[in-house]
Amino acid sequence: MIGYNFMGKAHSNAWRQVNRFFPDLPATVEMATICGRNPSAVEKAASVLGWKNTTTDWRKVVEDPSIDIIDITTPNDTHAEIAIAAAKAGKAVLCEKPLAKGVAEAEAMVAAVKAAGVVNMVCHNYRRIPAVALAKQMIEKGELGDRIFHYRARYAQDWIADPKFPLVWRLKKEIAGSGTHGDINAHIIDLGRYLVGEIDEVCGMMETFVKERPIQDEAGEGLGAKGGQKMGQVTVDDAVSWIGRFKNGAFANLEATRFAHGRKNHITFEINGSKGSLVFDFEDMNRLKFFSSEAPAHRQGFTDILVTDGGVHPYLKAWWPGGHIIGYEHTFVNTFADFVTAVAEGKSVQPTFEDGLINEKVLDAIEESSKSRSWVKL
Amino acid sequence: MIGYNFMGKAHSNAWRQVNRFFPDLPATVEMATICGRNPSAVEKAASVLGWKNTTTDWRKVVEDPSIDIIDITTPNDTHAEIAIAAAKAGKAVLCEKPLAKGVAEAEAMVAAVKAAGVVNMVCHNYRRIPAVALAKQMIEKGELGDRIFHYRARYAQDWIADPKFPLVWRLKKEIAGSGTHGDINAHIIDLGRYLVGEIDEVCGMMETFVKERPIQDEAGEGLGAKGGQKMGQVTVDDAVSWIGRFKNGAFANLEATRFAHGRKNHITFEINGSKGSLVFDFEDMNRLKFFSSEAPAHRQGFTDILVTDGGVHPYLKAWWPGGHIIGYEHTFVNTFADFVTAVAEGKSVQPTFEDGLINEKVLDAIEESSKSRSWVKL
Amino acid sequence: MIGYNFMGKAHSNAWRQVNRFFPDLPATVEMATICGRNPSAVEKAASVLGWKNTTTDWRKVVEDPSIDIIDITTPNDTHAEIAIAAAKAGKAVLCEKPLAKGVAEAEAMVAAVKAAGVVNMVCHNYRRIPAVALAKQMIEKGELGDRIFHYRARYAQDWIADPKFPLVWRLKKEIAGSGTHGDINAHIIDLGRYLVGEIDEVCGMMETFVKERPIQDEAGEGLGAKGGQKMGQVTVDDAVSWIGRFKNGAFANLEATRFAHGRKNHITFEINGSKGSLVFDFEDMNRLKFFSSEAPAHRQGFTDILVTDGGVHPYLKAWWPGGHIIGYEHTFVNTFADFVTAVAEGKSVQPTFEDGLINEKVLDAIEESSKSRSWVKL
Amino acid sequence: MIGYNFMGKAHSNAWRQVNRFFPDLPATVEMATICGRNPSAVEKAASVLGWKNTTTDWRKVVEDPSIDIIDITTPNDTHAEIAIAAAKAGKAVLCEKPLAKGVAEAEAMVAAVKAAGVVNMVCHNYRRIPAVALAKQMIEKGELGDRIFHYRARYAQDWIADPKFPLVWRLKKEIAGSGTHGDINAHIIDLGRYLVGEIDEVCGMMETFVKERPIQDEAGEGLGAKGGQKMGQVTVDDAVSWIGRFKNGAFANLEATRFAHGRKNHITFEINGSKGSLVFDFEDMNRLKFFSSEAPAHRQGFTDILVTDGGVHPYLKAWWPGGHIIGYEHTFVNTFADFVTAVAEGKSVQPTFEDGLINEKVLDAIEESSKSRSWVKL
Repeated sequence: MIGYNFMGKAHSNAWRQVNRFFPDLPATVEMATICGRNPSAVEKAASVLGWKNTTTDWRKVVEDPSIDIIDITTPNDTHAEIAIAAAKAGKAVLCEKPLAKGVAEAEAMVAAVKAAGVVNMVCHNYRRIPAVALAKQMIEKGELGDRIFHYRARYAQDWIADPKFPLVWRLKKEIAGSGTHGDINAHIIDLGRYLVGEIDEVCGMMETFVKERPIQDEAGEGLGAKGGQKMGQVTVDDAVSWIGRFKNGAFANLEATRFAHGRKNHITFEINGSKGSLVFDFEDMNRLKFFSSEAPAHRQGFTDILVTDGGVHPYLKAWWPGGHIIGYEHTFVNTFADFVTAVAEGKSVQPTFEDGLINEKVLDAIEESSKSRSWVKL
Repeated sequence: MIGYNFMGKAHSNAWRQVNRFFPDLPATVEMATICGRNPSAVEKAASVLGWKNTTTDWRKVVEDPSIDIIDITTPNDTHAEIAIAAAKAGKAVLCEKPLAKGVAEAEAMVAAVKAAGVVNMVCHNYRRIPAVALAKQMIEKGELGDRIFHYRARYAQDWIADPKFPLVWRLKKEIAGSGTHGDINAHIIDLGRYLVGEIDEVCGMMETFVKERPIQDEAGEGLGAKGGQKMGQVTVDDAVSWIGRFKNGAFANLEATRFAHGRKNHITFEINGSKGSLVFDFEDMNRLKFFSSEAPAHRQGFTDILVTDGGVHPYLKAWWPGGHIIGYEHTFVNTFADFVTAVAEGKSVQPTFEDGLINEKVLDAIEESSKSRSWVKL
Repeated sequence: MIGYNFMGKAHSNAWRQVNRFFPDLPATVEMATICGRNPSAVEKAASVLGWKNTTTDWRKVVEDPSIDIIDITTPNDTHAEIAIAAAKAGKAVLCEKPLAKGVAEAEAMVAAVKAAGVVNMVCHNYRRIPAVALAKQMIEKGELGDRIFHYRARYAQDWIADPKFPLVWRLKKEIAGSGTHGDINAHIIDLGRYLVGEIDEVCGMMETFVKERPIQDEAGEGLGAKGGQKMGQVTVDDAVSWIGRFKNGAFANLEATRFAHGRKNHITFEINGSKGSLVFDFEDMNRLKFFSSEAPAHRQGFTDILVTDGGVHPYLKAWWPGGHIIGYEHTFVNTFADFVTAVAEGKSVQPTFEDGLINEKVLDAIEESSKSRSWVKL
Repeated sequence: MIGYNFMGKAHSNAWRQVNRFFPDLPATVEMATICGRNPSAVEKAASVLGWKNTTTDWRKVVEDPSIDIIDITTPNDTHAEIAIAAAKAGKAVLCEKPLAKGVAEAEAMVAAVKAAGVVNMVCHNYRRIPAVALAKQMIEKGELGDRIFHYRARYAQDWIADPKFPLVWRLKKEIAGSGTHGDINAHIIDLGRYLVGEIDEVCGMMETFVKERPIQDEAGEGLGAKGGQKMGQVTVDDAVSWIGRFKNGAFANLEATRFAHGRKNHITFEINGSKGSLVFDFEDMNRLKFFSSEAPAHRQGFTDILVTDGGVHPYLKAWWPGGHIIGYEHTFVNTFADFVTAVAEGKSVQPTFEDGLINEKVLDAIEESSKSRSWVKL
């Protein structure tokens, strides 16, 4: 694993847990080497997160013949180089989203994994929230009907809604690449493509509501971070809102923001089809709401499905009896279980780097639309 | 109509509205005379509420040959005398709940209406909340299965949870008769009998949490009432909690309280049958939640039925298109629509005085149980 | 009152009830004359709805010197002519929304009421849902902070989501003018302007998902309507989705659709400000959710305000004790109470015809944007 | 660890994870030995769950000088013998609930750990659900006021609501000890004692709704279990319902059932105090609802606290950023973190064996009350 921060914690946990909860996987994971730039930090991470070896040079990991899988959780701007090297070395590659810094990089990555014929996956873990996987199954079985009219989604947070919140690195374009757009809009785009289909055209707007923030006086990060007196420019977007059309004719209406007080990690979507509707909210991620127009008329309504039944709900067999919910990090364990199987069988599973590339194209189109103030075709 | 306070307002509205929204009723209501003890207050009430004549002597109303229906909304301790006189005069009688001050009075009232052969009804308006009427229909159709296991209900309010709230008349036994018991426990008992069946035995406890309160310094009443420095005894119950068994074997678990902060008029029940469950909350009275164990396993969950569809839901045809909710007073209009039909057809509809009598018996049994600290059979 | 259909029923009820529940109004309403084209239908309506006189000629009503208020509930395309005549006759005018068929008509209407100096109001009844009025008060008091970032709203219904639903008049442009756009998008535009401010620019898309529907074989209308075999063109929009900016910099993201299964009259909005957020859903119209970033950190969350407390919540003093909810038609009674006061005092209250005109301009801009596939400034 | 079934899986996970997520604990856990009666099953469990050694003789574990902690997850009837031996051997003891088969056994266990002076804990993991721990903190800070009026709780499941569900071992008294009473009523009793205080008197009823069930034709267990044609006696309770009083005067109203369709692991409680109320539902275990009568009147309502903020909510610092929920097994990790600290510091933390003993006393009193049909004092 290359990288050891927030995603490193989530990924390490998933590697540790995957064989414990999915004991029938075709392979057993060994947590060989964790790599990071700061030697003492990576040592500490290895110890806390359960890795055998450490290194500060990612090339050593990529070249290590005893290693089969390269897991990339580093900042966005390093994904391409590492992934391409890993593919060339014949490793299976799991890469955090967004796949790359732009379409060109992503295309190179897709070319590399194709050329090398290696198993690859971009880690859109939200696809394997059981409720989302159930939504996918229901749509495929036709439970929403043969046509979808609306995909309306929102990813809302509030951690920078206070204008006094300091200028952390995520608010600087040179480091973060983008703000809400690549960080969270990417997720609801991916979910839309997974559940509804490919996108045909987009029209959007982006905004930086708070253009100056206090420069951070120390290395602190996150919600408790404090800023000093000096002000600096925010160079990424605070919110993005866009409309569009899927190739199948459905409306897309999406919004990503970090300025919605009370919304912590509020990934919501509603999908309306010709026979029914589905509603999801990540903050209640063990639930999926379903309306069927085919139910007896006097009993129609949104059914609040508690997606915890191992007998019928995806991924739940690995976990606990019905009514005992799972949490955020389980989505990674579910993802990694499928990836381990894919590696063992030598066959990629969705979402592949190709998916990552298409997501990049959609992100680019929205950004272009926002600048040109016009519709952009994909 | 005899009486003109809170219930007088609700009843008058229902008399005014019933033919407007149920235009196919077999009779048209004329609001003849309103009666109350205070001449100027009753004059004002007549004008605001829409009555033609006023009187301060209820006997004049009962004796008036042009009047067909006597509607009793006076305090509890006067119901029996008026209702019996009205029955003797051959009038149809609609009486606010609780029917009487005790079983003996209630029995006399039942005897009187039977002897006179007049149409009679006790105004348990909550039976005609559309969601409750739908629950009844679903149970009768067997949608909960052939057996009911649990009826768990609560009527919770919070208007006296503050110990400084003054000693209003509803907290004095000589005027109010009882506290939560007759006022609100009566409602959830009636709903239980309506939906589940007759009760076999009970065991309960009653309590006055705040035994002394400031004596009110003026005639004020209600939430904004203010008390002075002098304290007086609270002589009614603040809460009652009881368990019991229905004759069909179902468990009863009920609680009524005025000490549940945040619960304003929180009438909730859950009914669990062998095939499904129903959940209701009066504060969202246009909804009924239904769980069916016969739905496809992957989609099971509580369905949140918005009971506003005139095509299939009881009483809704009279009101608005789907999704447009109705409110508290509509339950009276629905009730009065059925009563007007009953009067026109000369045939009582539930809940009759007989129901009122049985409710009294259950109330008495719980009170006795609370005193004797033992189970009481009905 | 000119007109007697769905809105006629709601308006008549409000006229009947307004003095009953708001007994302190400065004037008492007399329901003089109802006017409609079909003589027998208008006779029946008068009888059911409580009007003294009937006529089939709206000019007679406008010319009647004993009449002070003209209430227009006729189809959209007749509003302007009637309203202008009424204004000229010196009547106070209450007009159903949308104010007119377009900006030009609306401007003429505004000019007419201004020239005549008559009290005027466009009946956007949703402004006087108590929860919405409370939202307005809270925003004005600064409880959301000094800046608003997002207004995200949706008006979703599902009555034509079934492609077999017949071609009723509301789906024909020559009669209805538009589909979701003027019918329901208009409402959430008005609420946005009321709560957040004036709109600066818009970019939208409109769609007719189902372009052909069975021609209705009889006069039937509404949910139970049946179509025959022959097909006809749907000439109005099925859905509209748009993004935009308020003059104060807030994002607008709105959507109106009749293709969202399970959504009956789902008017929802979320407003995010610099200090807090508000969330509303019309299907639970007695509730307002509020998040304050200033609450103690360990207790922050959306507070589910049951807006039924007559002591502190707008309009509720007229109705019932806390916890006893009100319904759809009460929003008209509240509106009419304010209008009666306005007429008595000779001073218009919001939303005036001017508001109706601005709403028309926004509607026009969105339609233009949808056609030109570009942003349109207001 | 002695035992390896459902609880064995949850406990093993907690031992594995505790130092990963609580890296600052004063000790590091080593998972030495797992013990079970079936040699091949225990081998498999060790491998899947991550234990170094296995044995089929619990005495060997207790006598092993390299082991500091004995974790007992075996069936109920073996707790006492193992725990007493472990205490005598000077080990810290963590014991699954219920502590023992009855009061006598529990008293012996308490005596043993006291005599040995060893750290001891009964594993009521629900106390360390962050929302429950927050509730405790809020009550202690006085946020519900100085007096509690009601503790109303329910633990409802539905896994045997179908009368055809087979006669699994949990429905046989000789193996399971009791049905809902010891299994789930025990949990809401413990939560009541934790949050509200000690119980003074109880009055309850117990019932076996379905008295005969098909005998299982194979070793299967759980929801998918199948029964044959032959019927056998159910010898445990299906439901228990009881009322009671806390020593501080609060009402207790509790119910445990396995016959509530739609309720999977529905642990709910509502606590009403003189200044506010708290509501919890385990199926949404990351949330706590709080009503404060001290909030500004126009904004009062239940606040839906998403208990995921590591900065202010108990145990959350160990997990993920706000809005990323945790699941069932995290309650064990939180519990074990506190237990590891307790062991390192040589000082027991709640709930101790003493708590387990008092819980047994309450369970016994309810059972006695149900048999004698009378109130029982504690």
